Amino acid sequence: MAEINHQVGIKASPEKIYELLTTDLGLSQWWTNDISGAGEVGSIIQFRFNGGGPDFSVTKLIPNKLVKWEHSGAVPDAWMDTEIEFQLRVEETQTFVRFKHSNWKESSDFMAHCSTKWAVFLLSLKEALESGTGKPFPNDIHIDHS
Amino acid sequence: MAEINHQVGIKASPEKIYELLTTDLGLSQWWTNDISGAGEVGSIIQFRFNGGGPDFSVTKLIPNKLVKWEHSGAVPDAWMDTEIEFQLRVEETQTFVRFKHSNWKESSDFMAHCSTKWAVFLLSLKEALESGTGKPFPNDIHIDHS
Repeated sequence: MAEINHQVGIKASPEKIYELLTTDLGLSQWWTNDISGAGEVGSIIQFRFNGGGPDFSVTKLIPNKLVKWEHSGAVPDAWMDTEIEFQLRVEETQTFVRFKHSNWKESSDFMAHCSTKWAVFLLSLKEALESGTGKPFPNDIHIDHS
Repeated sequence: MAEINHQVGIKASPEKIYELLTTDLGLSQWWTNDISGAGEVGSIIQFRFNGGGPDFSVTKLIPNKLVKWEHSGAVPDAWMDTEIEFQLRVEETQTFVRFKHSNWKESSDFMAHCSTKWAVFLLSLKEALESGTGKPFPNDIHIDHS
């Protein structure tokens, strides 16, 4: 199984970061502006990019420490059965967000694309928290010309 | 074994991208401004960040298609025996750079940090080629406050 890993350090409290990972309003500040359904364990979050996009069910929440989602639905096909995890860890002057998108069947070009794109969105999360303005879709940084 | 994967699509010819992956002057436009030793297979490239940094030996070159390096030396320890690969693939209006940093012993926090940082430098490579100005160290985007 292949896996995407990232880590960013943010000058923000874990409480504030957790809010941006667990609410529609928070998630829409850094990933995509069209998000609905975020809530407690069992809820299904719909992330939309120009109408299409993945659904994730929330599988684990430890307030201000851990957020886990499981891909729910058929789009995109390569994301079937994959899981996403955000772990928060406070260290001195910053809170680290340790990200994993795991359980990929293979390390494909599409997975590599998603890995780079996740970095862009995690930096958008950092920016949203530190400057007040992230770069969610459709204002996200483009990593190719497709 | 753990692995970092990325992909960016660049509006530039594979010849021009290959130049930025295989020469001191080219590499210094997007990774770090202090680089020496780049050359044919067998040469050892020294990448320096404020004096310290990794060495890589060039292990394979297919002009305008493939660049492979093997970590050479002891710093950083977690990079021992790791390999880096850039594959270039032309598609319609862009050239894709498919990146792998493979053979990591484990998927650690440090590896996750490096994964995010590689995304930043690959976007710097894209920028260097498309706008003429990349963001090599010490002008690189910071992903934490360490």
